[in-house]
Order: sequence, then structure tokens, then C-alpha cells
Amino acid sequence: MTIAPPALSVFETLESEVRSYCRSWPAVFDRAQGSRLYDEDGHAYLDFFSGAGALNYGHNSPVLKRALIDYIERDGITHGLDMGTTAKRAFLETFQNVILRPRDLPYKVMFPGPTGTNAVEAALKLARKVKGRESIVSFTNAFHGMSLGSLAVTGNAFKRAGAGIPLVHGTPMPFDNYLDGQTPDFLWFERLLDDQGSGLNKPAAVIVETVQGEGGINVARPEWLRALSELCERQDMLLIVDDIQMGCGRTGAFFSFEESGITPDIVTLSKSIGGYGMPMSLCLFRPELDVWEPGEHNGTFRGNNPAFVTAAAALEAYWADGQTEKQTLARGEQVEAALRAICLEHAQLGASYRGRGLVWGMEFEDPEQATKVCRRAFEHGLLLETSGPRSEVVKLLPALTTTPEELDEGLRILARSVRETA
Amino acid sequence: MTIAPPALSVFETLESEVRSYCRSWPAVFDRAQGSRLYDEDGHAYLDFFSGAGALNYGHNSPVLKRALIDYIERDGITHGLDMGTTAKRAFLETFQNVILRPRDLPYKVMFPGPTGTNAVEAALKLARKVKGRESIVSFTNAFHGMSLGSLAVTGNAFKRAGAGIPLVHGTPMPFDNYLDGQTPDFLWFERLLDDQGSGLNKPAAVIVETVQGEGGINVARPEWLRALSELCERQDMLLIVDDIQMGCGRTGAFFSFEESGITPDIVTLSKSIGGYGMPMSLCLFRPELDVWEPGEHNGTFRGNNPAFVTAAAALEAYWADGQTEKQTLARGEQVEAALRAICLEHAQLGASYRGRGLVWGMEFEDPEQATKVCRRAFEHGLLLETSGPRSEVVKLLPALTTTPEELDEGLRILARSVRETA
Amino acid sequence: MTIAPPALSVFETLESEVRSYCRSWPAVFDRAQGSRLYDEDGHAYLDFFSGAGALNYGHNSPVLKRALIDYIERDGITHGLDMGTTAKRAFLETFQNVILRPRDLPYKVMFPGPTGTNAVEAALKLARKVKGRESIVSFTNAFHGMSLGSLAVTGNAFKRAGAGIPLVHGTPMPFDNYLDGQTPDFLWFERLLDDQGSGLNKPAAVIVETVQGEGGINVARPEWLRALSELCERQDMLLIVDDIQMGCGRTGAFFSFEESGITPDIVTLSKSIGGYGMPMSLCLFRPELDVWEPGEHNGTFRGNNPAFVTAAAALEAYWADGQTEKQTLARGEQVEAALRAICLEHAQLGASYRGRGLVWGMEFEDPEQATKVCRRAFEHGLLLETSGPRSEVVKLLPALTTTPEELDEGLRILARSVRETA
Amino acid sequence: MTIAPPALSVFETLESEVRSYCRSWPAVFDRAQGSRLYDEDGHAYLDFFSGAGALNYGHNSPVLKRALIDYIERDGITHGLDMGTTAKRAFLETFQNVILRPRDLPYKVMFPGPTGTNAVEAALKLARKVKGRESIVSFTNAFHGMSLGSLAVTGNAFKRAGAGIPLVHGTPMPFDNYLDGQTPDFLWFERLLDDQGSGLNKPAAVIVETVQGEGGINVARPEWLRALSELCERQDMLLIVDDIQMGCGRTGAFFSFEESGITPDIVTLSKSIGGYGMPMSLCLFRPELDVWEPGEHNGTFRGNNPAFVTAAAALEAYWADGQTEKQTLARGEQVEAALRAICLEHAQLGASYRGRGLVWGMEFEDPEQATKVCRRAFEHGLLLETSGPRSEVVKLLPALTTTPEELDEGLRILARSVRETA
Repeated sequence: MTIAPPALSVFETLESEVRSYCRSWPAVFDRAQGSRLYDEDGHAYLDFFSGAGALNYGHNSPVLKRALIDYIERDGITHGLDMGTTAKRAFLETFQNVILRPRDLPYKVMFPGPTGTNAVEAALKLARKVKGRESIVSFTNAFHGMSLGSLAVTGNAFKRAGAGIPLVHGTPMPFDNYLDGQTPDFLWFERLLDDQGSGLNKPAAVIVETVQGEGGINVARPEWLRALSELCERQDMLLIVDDIQMGCGRTGAFFSFEESGITPDIVTLSKSIGGYGMPMSLCLFRPELDVWEPGEHNGTFRGNNPAFVTAAAALEAYWADGQTEKQTLARGEQVEAALRAICLEHAQLGASYRGRGLVWGMEFEDPEQATKVCRRAFEHGLLLETSGPRSEVVKLLPALTTTPEELDEGLRILARSVRETA
Repeated sequence: MTIAPPALSVFETLESEVRSYCRSWPAVFDRAQGSRLYDEDGHAYLDFFSGAGALNYGHNSPVLKRALIDYIERDGITHGLDMGTTAKRAFLETFQNVILRPRDLPYKVMFPGPTGTNAVEAALKLARKVKGRESIVSFTNAFHGMSLGSLAVTGNAFKRAGAGIPLVHGTPMPFDNYLDGQTPDFLWFERLLDDQGSGLNKPAAVIVETVQGEGGINVARPEWLRALSELCERQDMLLIVDDIQMGCGRTGAFFSFEESGITPDIVTLSKSIGGYGMPMSLCLFRPELDVWEPGEHNGTFRGNNPAFVTAAAALEAYWADGQTEKQTLARGEQVEAALRAICLEHAQLGASYRGRGLVWGMEFEDPEQATKVCRRAFEHGLLLETSGPRSEVVKLLPALTTTPEELDEGLRILARSVRETA
Repeated sequence: MTIAPPALSVFETLESEVRSYCRSWPAVFDRAQGSRLYDEDGHAYLDFFSGAGALNYGHNSPVLKRALIDYIERDGITHGLDMGTTAKRAFLETFQNVILRPRDLPYKVMFPGPTGTNAVEAALKLARKVKGRESIVSFTNAFHGMSLGSLAVTGNAFKRAGAGIPLVHGTPMPFDNYLDGQTPDFLWFERLLDDQGSGLNKPAAVIVETVQGEGGINVARPEWLRALSELCERQDMLLIVDDIQMGCGRTGAFFSFEESGITPDIVTLSKSIGGYGMPMSLCLFRPELDVWEPGEHNGTFRGNNPAFVTAAAALEAYWADGQTEKQTLARGEQVEAALRAICLEHAQLGASYRGRGLVWGMEFEDPEQATKVCRRAFEHGLLLETSGPRSEVVKLLPALTTTPEELDEGLRILARSVRETA
Repeated sequence: MTIAPPALSVFETLESEVRSYCRSWPAVFDRAQGSRLYDEDGHAYLDFFSGAGALNYGHNSPVLKRALIDYIERDGITHGLDMGTTAKRAFLETFQNVILRPRDLPYKVMFPGPTGTNAVEAALKLARKVKGRESIVSFTNAFHGMSLGSLAVTGNAFKRAGAGIPLVHGTPMPFDNYLDGQTPDFLWFERLLDDQGSGLNKPAAVIVETVQGEGGINVARPEWLRALSELCERQDMLLIVDDIQMGCGRTGAFFSFEESGITPDIVTLSKSIGGYGMPMSLCLFRPELDVWEPGEHNGTFRGNNPAFVTAAAALEAYWADGQTEKQTLARGEQVEAALRAICLEHAQLGASYRGRGLVWGMEFEDPEQATKVCRRAFEHGLLLETSGPRSEVVKLLPALTTTPEELDEGLRILARSVRETA
């Protein structure tokens, strides 16, 4: 595929230097359907990125689109703050009936603002308020967001430096399999907690991703999550699972922590919860933690009602039965087989792969190769991004609705891109 | 109007105690058009609140709605991160042609995430990075948002306490007319800056609202803003105008600072910039401040393309000529006359009023009365909220598109509500 | 007096660049008696500096010297941590009988470590513990010490920068007469406290010097101190008077706050409390504030018993009756008269003077002149230092035991030095 | 020995509740000589505590006493700030000739104030200034002092809580042998440093004690210290050895780090440096780190000249040759043999011992027993204290000048006390 140089001028002259994806993918995208994006010149791109996990049901899913247009057509409330609205009620009821009740999850639901970082900020505030302590434990290579509260529990040094102030009140602990594979899990963390002389400020809470997306597709084992949950209970710390990128079915089940059987005290959801790619987020917590005063946390766009409409429609469409989970796990096996084959074919590259459900990563010994693979894949019409602290991992986040044929097409482009950059 | 008790159950049982507006306005809203909302029982409400300033063009404006539905119908990109898209380009070009160029404003444009607090966090990060200092000066009764960075420069003690950690790196200074009306403006602030022994950490920037909305409709005089701007230049501090609530024409001109003739170094916009009430925000800054590295600040929903579409349509519809500004100022005079009459009629209440354009506040000596007035107004079908540190101010934020007749209707309900609660 | 270039080598080659006084006074001092120091070449210097206020009773006062040598001779405990010792008991009893009881002061006594900054750190810890709040209010041009807690409430920008971390949890307020002389005292401070939207973190305590020594000999009026004390009580904040430099009779009475009639909640003492120039400090507080757990604050040298011996001897010698206070006030009048004359003589220099008891400052319009005056005075055999944020004030701190003749001698050298540098 | 109830009244009524040692040792001490203290009733106590390490040469050593009294008698400068004095010069020259030169140590010498915490605060400030970073790494169970800067790198939770503010900018790492004895040293620390996504703020410096005294007599192996030193160099962090308690010969050599062969970038000394138990401290650093501005750090009592006199005399008396080191190591073997015997005799107590030179700890499985042993030892006339986070370790810090007979006497009392509390 030959791509004519796109007309980028206004992006280059007017938009801030902070822009990033448009540099990796020098195209001007116009429309999208399912797993395909189309640029203004009509070129099609297969999407294995899915809006960084915000488009688990693909682009512009027809069933959600219908519900959305109907709602807009009939002048449904667009902007509702935290007023009661019919759209919000419908979402809440659906969320309760389709998600919480069948899983026996007791959570209260908070609308903390429409983005992931709003949800994380709310979760941290609540944990600190409940426990009366400032400190939060996060994990190596965690990513929780870019506002100051979330950034303080995020690992990436480059993004942390952007704060312009020292980020405090957070302490990193080793994520699963971070050390040598021989040091017992939580040896260090629990020793610090048990020892009154350790110097660790007793944490209000622990915040964790079950699979670290930005951190390099690091997958926590269910037994590690269970041990973490037990540690939190034993040590009187709240457990916050940040399921913003890994929730909404990305790993198979609706919540990524279901596989491990734990019940976190607080859960954050965003990205795909709105279903259609529109801003929405939730903060869920055990009812006994609901010590908020009215309005103690707020936000102008916490009532993005069109997103409530598509969110409810998505829950009905994809989560009323177990089909989505089953299908995701099956698709995951397809991906895994392909990655295994690539690694075998290119044993000399020292590449390895890991993942769960439909989130996978392929790591290269030479970190530069991951970037080269993504660049080559783009030239072949496949959108792929890197992750990890040195961008050393090619990240695969295809929509859950990707067909086996599309998956196969994308995986073949990946294999070819690896081959061509080896 | 008699309102049947609405079916609130799921809000009360499932939604967090943090909810607030739904407590003041016990209704379940369903749809809206222009300045009217309708609840599920068909009752109509005249809206003098406008989504806390996010709906300057009223609810579901037909011209924006058309553009939005067309975009959705044709499968335009919904979620675009910071990829180049045709919708984003159209917005950028329109913003440049309709807003920046005619005002000779040199700003670069950053999409920091879709909410106001994202924009404030980005502005503070950038100021700290540029100046290499941590401290920020804000003003008494400022409101800038609920994530930790923004909250640290927000005045409200109740909301600050929600942080659960000590909020530092911010110092409040007196807003215009905060002290006794005799102390010279900036006497204290400049003395602190000039004195190497003052103990004030030299600030990277000053963040200010030209009219404090949440703080009680406190209106800064143009000469105060000019003096502040000169002070910032003299003292090597950046001036950030947070125009999230007062921008997009709320005070008459597109930017609320235009009247004073200043050019801030950084400007935050959100709320009404999307036009239709969907999440969107911008951070504008002088080109020489654009020292961001690619991706140094990011956010999943920073490319909310449907909002770009309605934003561009709104700029075309309302800002291509000077009509909106002229009309807003005229409507403002209508409001002012009515408030003057109410205050005269009820001199015994010690009420006073203030405002600019279409943002007005009426303050009562007895802070409880403001709440009573709003409650009574709701019973008469008018949505009104309080603001100020003790909720002592009735805040009027009608849509800029409110007709003179609607304005008149609302102002009569207000007068009646004051009378009935006097 | 001609001074041969002293042999400074080991100071220059081995001692850190941080050294300062030895740069102003290029001599190697060997011994001292009363108000005179002698360098190794036998030159005598009249001391108007008194160890920055640590030598209120002059150098090596014979009566204290006798007690000290006796104690050392008989192998009295030197280093006692906070064990009970006879020397400590004698000091405590003397302090109670001579100082606390006659003044009806109810304080408990804490030995927080032997330096002023230890006492300030202890005072701030205690205030924060009692009130459960982090924030402390200090005043412009305050000086409280160089460890991180004390430095955060110190004004000097140069010294603050030395911290290497942002100093937080402290907010400066205007010291007496800091603004224009027309703004009412505490207008700003009390407005911040009364306004729930001000953005000021509610302080645990206010820390103040009654006369700011390092800050430029700024003298708080008694009525200002009384108003501050009432403000603290009204607003539930503790009042800490840092009397490290101004206590022990420097301003006349033993405590510098006695003149104003206030009773601070916490008082810090150091410098001259040991009497003989040896390290010692105290933290005094109302008994109901004594919520310390055993050992919650400690320090290796908090039981410097030789200093307890000289401290008790000094209290007996100088404070058993009202003579010292009376004499100090008389000497102060002598100083004031001389300063008045100098200012009158050199009206063109725009010099002014201020002070209380035996602490006085002479400020010059041209800040460089203060340094020149001190340098010239040194050449004439008088030790004088500058203070103030720009070193614009010549500071006079003669020993309380200085004779009228010595005072006269020094004041004549000062007059001559001003004349010669005019 | 029967001890009459001492007259504690003024301690109990006037002194703050913060007092601690006087609770363990209910006596009023009056005088002391060598390793013996005497209370006011004439009872003698053998001292195995040595002023928490401030009395390495015993109490009131005759040779130092002579020098001190001579100095006082001849009116030598007592309080010298950082003026040049003959006493200071003599100390500096002696320190250079006796300590630095023979060890080929290149350090500049700073007098940061007379207490250990002053030295630590100065060291941390300097490290932050040199590296331009805020963060410091300390170790589990570290103790560095009670002012805010030092407390932030101290482990003890009880003492940390006394700060009343969240202690930040410090991160604990595992001290030698802290984990399971199998996890490789520095595995976690170096992984955090190497990983750009770890979330650890890059430290300016690492601060370490070679033997943790307050932390429970935890002895770092020489190879661990060497590996730490190499890690610091490799990772561009300064290495600060806090030798306040373990320096001045406590472990054998003058500096406790000599055995390992490392050369720290910064060293803090205090406690026994003054020799006679009077307040004095030093901060030593490589010359290229001496970036202090004159007066950037200061302190009223940084020129405690009588301590300089005894310090110089002590260096001459004890460090002119290798005798002290040799003798200390021999005495240490005597202690070790006795502790080994006690542990063997009481195998059922699960007691263990550890130490170096003349600092030893005996840990009991039942933490309460350590306290019981010390209480019983006191009844038998031996001063012993506990240490460790749960006070589970009996700490032995006899003076280096203790005779073999005294050592034997004390060790027999210890053995008896263990037996009687078993």
C-alpha cells in the first residue's frame, strides 16, 4: 500500500508538540467500522489497538449506534451532571442486573467524571478518607493516569517528570514476577508492613492492574492476586483494582479479576465501559466505604448521558450471557498460537510473548525492534502500538468483536513485519 | 405545578452518597430542548443553570444536533486519541479562523483530555516545567477542579478536605475586592515577591478566573486583571486564565479576558467548548511555552471526535460574527435590571447582585435564604443553583440562546421565589 | 589598629565553603572576657554581636565560670541524655522558682536537644500532634532554624533554597507593620481563616518572634502581639513564641513577650539560656498540651549537664530580682540616643533605627552601606553584623552586662564607621 | 543493692512526659568517672550504655578534663559560631593529621551545628543540592535523627508518627540480611533504578549506618557495604555513611566503614567526636561536593569551642597510634565469648547475638524479655538499654576504655539478669 503524504499542516502548526500517536501513524483518519479505520484518502487500516482499550466492541458498533442516534434524535438529555435522568437510571439498572448481581458483587456506583484518571483520583481520595492515611502502594510499571493523584502511583519516569513537582505519598512494590522468579511474592512488602521499624508509611490502599497494559503487558497470576488480596485484608489496607484498560471483557470475563476469585474493595472502570468510545468512567466500592459527603467529589462531565445510553446498550448486547467471554478466550488462543509461531520462527531475536484473553504482548531483546515492527505493520495497514518502559513490547489489543479472519489477517501482517525487521 | 414523587430508587440504593444535584432537584429528567428540560412525567423546567456553564448554546441545539447525527451516521471516527482525524482538523482550522486569528491570539492548542480538570492539570504541569518551580498562586474562592493538582489551587475547604492528603505547592492571594476595598490591589502579593525574606516560594504561575463562578460570582475588574497581568510579567510568573466556566461567550466576548485587553500565557477552556454538552477541553498557550515532549501528557479520551464536530459547528454558528457577544450583553442588561428591581423591592434582605454578560449572582445576608430561593424556584419549574463558600449566592447561568421572553419568565419566578422566602 | 594577615590556612583548605563569619571578621580569636574578644595576636575587639544572642551575659562570666569549673572538677555528669541528674534537678527547680512562678507561667519544660532548631522542631511537632493539622503560619522575614521543619517556617529565600526540596506546610503572613501602615493588622489573615473558600489550610499553630533578629530587627508592637494572641484563641490555633534570640532578657524582661502581657501556648528558648554559651534549649508549653509519649522526640545531647549548671547559675545571678531588666532598659535608652544622633547627623543616608531593650537595628537606604559600616567597624575593633533580607540593617546585640562606658565606646565606633562610609 | 526511692518530684511535675531514660533508670545521677556513674545516694552503676555512644572514652576522662579546665580557666572562646578560633584551628589540624591524612581521606570538614541531626540535615541538603533531586534512599530500621529531614529517613514508626505531617522524599530499602537470606543483595533496589518504569523517584543519595544501633544492632557485612558503594557509583547516587553512633572507634577503626574499604561521599560524625560528651558534630564530604554558599546552612552552636578542645585532645590521646583499635577488637572478643556462653546456656530462650568491635546486641525471641533483662541489670547496678523496633534487643555499648575486669563484671551481671528473667 502506498500512502500519499497526508495534509498534516494544521496539526503541525497549531497543535501542541505533546501530540504523539499522529506521529506514529501519519494519516488523517476519517471514519471507522468494526475493526477497520479509513483515512481521508480511502485507505483502510486494520485496528489492533482499539483506542488503547476504549473500543472493545470495535468502532461504531451498529447496535450501539442505533441506540445513540435514537437518543440524540429524541433530544434525550446530553449533559446531566449528577441529576437523575432516565438514561442514567437505565444504565444503573442494567449494570446492576447484567453485571453486579450475577457476579454477586455488592458495589455502590460512583460517577467520578468521564475519564479514567477521574476514577482513579476518586478511588484514592476515598481510600485515604476511609483509612485516614496518606500513603498508597502501587506496583512497578503501573499506569493509572496523568493528573497528579494518579501520576503519583504511575511508574513511568518520563511521565512522572512531567509533573513538575516531586510526586509523593506513593511507594512502588514489585509486580508479579518482577524480580528473579525465586524471591517469594510479597516477601519484601509484607516484611515492611510487619516491621514497625521499616520506615514504610502504613498505606491506606494498594492499587493494582491485573494485567499492566502500558507497563508492557505484564500478567499477574491469579494466585498472586489472591495473595495480594489476603495481604490487604490481613494488613488493613484497601485493595483497589484499576480495571480501566483490562475490564469490560478485555481478558475474557467482564472484570479482569474474576478469574482469580478476589473481590477488590474498590474498582475503577473507564475506556470501554461507554461502549462506543465516548468518555465515561465508574468508581465502584463496597457499600461500607461509601462515606462520601454529597458533592465532596464532583465534575462537570460526570453525567455524559449519551455514553450511558451506549453503555447500557453494550451491556445488553454483549454481557447478557457468557458468549463474549467464551469468544474472547477462543480468540485469545488464536492469537497465542500465532505469537508462538512467530517466536519459534525467529528464535534468534530472543522474542517472547504473554497475555490473557485479547491482550497480548510480544517483547523483543532489542527494544528498538518493537518500534520498527509497529512502523512496518502500519505500512502494511495494521495499527499496532508499543508499550513497556523502553517501548520494547508490541502490544496487541484487537477489538473483542474482531472476526477470526481479521485476527488472522492482522497476525499475518505482524509475522511479516517481524520478518522484515529481523 | 405539582410533582409526583419520582421513582428514585436505583439512585438511592445503587449510586454513591456523593451525588448532589439530584438531591436539590428531585426529578428524573428525560429530554431537553433549548432552555427547557422535561422530566419523565412530562413536567417542563426552565434552565438557568446550563449544566454549570457547559450548555451555553442551550440543550440539544438543532444545528449542532444535525452535524452530530450526520457524523455518527456516516461512521465518523468516534474515539481518536491524538491521531490526526478529519474532525479534529476541521475543528482546529475553525478554531484558528473564527477564534484565534480575529483576536490576534498566538496560541498553540493542546487536547489534554476531555474535562476541565485535565486542562488545569496540563496547564500547571506546563507552567512548572517551563519555569522550573513548584509553587502556584491561586485566589481566594477559586475553583479549578477535583483532581489533586487542580484541587490544590481550589479554595473550598470542604472539597480540599476530600483530598485526604495535605494540599501543598499552592498559596492563595486575595481576589479582586476581597479585602476592605481600601487595601491597594496586590499590595500583599507584590510585597511578598519583592522581599527576599518573605517566605513565599517563588511561584511558577498565577491561575485566575475572571469571574469566579463556584466562588460566588465574584467579578474581577478589567483594571485588576491588567494589573495582575503586568505583575506576572514583571515578576517572571506565567499567567493562566482558567476560562472553563467563563469562556465560550459566557461574559459576552468569546474569552472572558478580552474585555480587559490582557493576553494570558496559558488559557484553559472546557464546558461549552464542545457546544453540545459533550466532554471536551483545550489548553492554549503561547508558542514559546510549547516545550512538551511527545506524549509527556496524555489521556484516553483526549480525542472525543463527536465533540470536535459539534465544537466546530458551534463556532461557525455562533462566533463567525459579533452577534452572540452583542446579544449576550443585551440579555445581561435585562437580567441586571430585574435583579436591581428585586433588591430594591426587598431592601430589608440586604441582598446584592453582581455579574457580567450572562453570569449573575444574587447574594443574601442570610445564607440560608439562597438555598430556600432555589428550592422554591424549582417548585415553580426553574432550575437555579447556589454558589459561594457558604452557598449564599443564587447563581444565574442561563443559556446564551435564551430568548428575552424565557429570561423574563425565569426572572419573574426568581422574584416570586425571593418574595415567598423573604 | 593594624591587623597582620592571620594564618587562616587550615580554615581555607580544610573547612567547608559554608563558613561565613570568619569571612567578615578575618581574625583568629583566642580568648574572651565580658564584652571583649582577643585574637591570637593580642588584638582586642569589643563585641556588639554576642554570639548572635547566645552570650547575653558576656563571655566567660566569672560567676558562671566558677560554677562550671567546680562541676567539671568534681566529675559531675557531663552527658546525661534525659536521665535524672542533680544538675538537671537544680536547673529545673531554679527555673521554676526564679522564672516561671514569679511570672505565674504554668509551663511544662521539655529538653528537646541542645539547639534552637531542636526546640522549634519539637514545638511544631507538638502543635501538629495536638491539633491534628499540618499547616503552620509564620511571618514574613521570620527565622526559626535550618533543619527542614524549622526552615519551612523561615522566610529567607537563600536559606530556603538550601533545603533542596520544596518547603511546604507553612504559609507566611505579614509581620507587624509589613504592609503600608494603613492596612488593618490581621485583615488578610483573619479573612482567610473566616472564609471557608479561602484556600488556606487551617493552621495548627502560629509561630512568631516578638522582635525579628535575623529578619532585620523588626519590632512587633505589644498591641499587635495581643491581637495575634486573641486571634489564635478565637480561631483555635496554638501560639508559639520563638524566644530563642529575644528571650533571656534581650528585650528587658526575661521573656520578650512579657511586655505585651500575652501567655503563648508554646515557647522556645535557647541561645542564652545556658548562660555561658554552651548548647542548650528548652521547649515550654501549657500542661494540657503535654501529650508526648515517652521518647516520642529525643536527642543525644538533650542532657548537656554542664550547660544546666551554668544556666542555673545565670538565673540565680541575673534574674533573682528585677535588676537586669531595669539595667537593660536603661542601656537601651543609651543606645537609642546614640542611634538617633547618628541618623540626625546623616540625614542624607536615609537611615532609620529601631529596637527594644538591647537589640537595635540601623537600616540604610543603600543596603551595601550596612555591610561597609560593619567592615569598617571591625577595622576599628568592633564586632557588628548585618541582618535583614538584603543585609541592609546593622544589628546591635551587645551583652546585657556591657558597661555604659563600653556601650559608649562601641557607639562612637559605629558613628565613626557610618561617617567614614557615608 | 537496695535503692531508696529517689526524689523525682520536679522531674515528674515540671518536666514533660516525653522524658524516657529516667523512667528506665529511676535514680538521680550526680557524678561519673570512667565506666561508673554514681547517684546522689552514692550508689555506683557500671555503664554499658555510654550516653548512647557519646561517651566512647568513658565519663570525664582525666586527660580531656585537664585540657577542658585549662581552656575554661584561661578564658578560651566558648561560643564561636563559625569564626576562626585557635581552638577550632587546633581541632582541624589534629583531625587532618591524626584522622584524615593517615587514612588518605580527602574530605572537607563542615561544622553543621552540634548535634547528630544537624549533621544529617546538612548532609541531605548538600546531596540534594549537588544532584538536583529530592529523593533519598534509607534502610529498614535506620535511625538518623528527630528533626524533619532526618526523621523522614528514619524507620521507627512511632517516632515517624511524631512528625505530625506525612514524611516524604524518602524510600526504605532492605538493610543487609533483612529478607530471607536468599534474595540477592540489592536485587530489588537495583531493579528499581534500572527500570524506567519502576516508579522510584531517582535518589540523590543513599544514607546508611554500617551497624544500626537504634535499629537493633544490625551489622552490615563489608561485602554488602562494598556492593552498596559500587551501586551508588554506578547509579550516580551519593553514598552517605551516618557514622554518628558507630564512628569514633566504636567498631574498632576510627570510621566504621574502614573495615570494608569504601570511601563514602559524605560522612556524618557526632556523639563521641567531642570526646567528653559535649555537643559537637561534623559533616565530611569530598571536596568536589563542597558547593555550599557561605552561610547557606548555619546554626548558633556550630562553634562549641570547649568541645573542639576535648575533641582534639581525644584524637591525640586515643588515635595517634593503632592502640585503641586493637584494644577495642580485643575487648569485642571478650564480649562475644560471654554472649556466646549466655546463649548456649539458655538455648531455650532462642536468644542470639551479633556485633562488631564494642557494639553488641543480644536478641530474645520474646521481646519482653529484653526489657526485663535491662530492668534486672539495673537492679544489679548495670546500665543497659534495649533497641530494635520492638525493643527486643539488649544493646551493649561499653566505653572503649572499659577495662577487661569491668567488662567481665558487666557481662556477669548480664548473664545473671538473663538467668533471673528466663
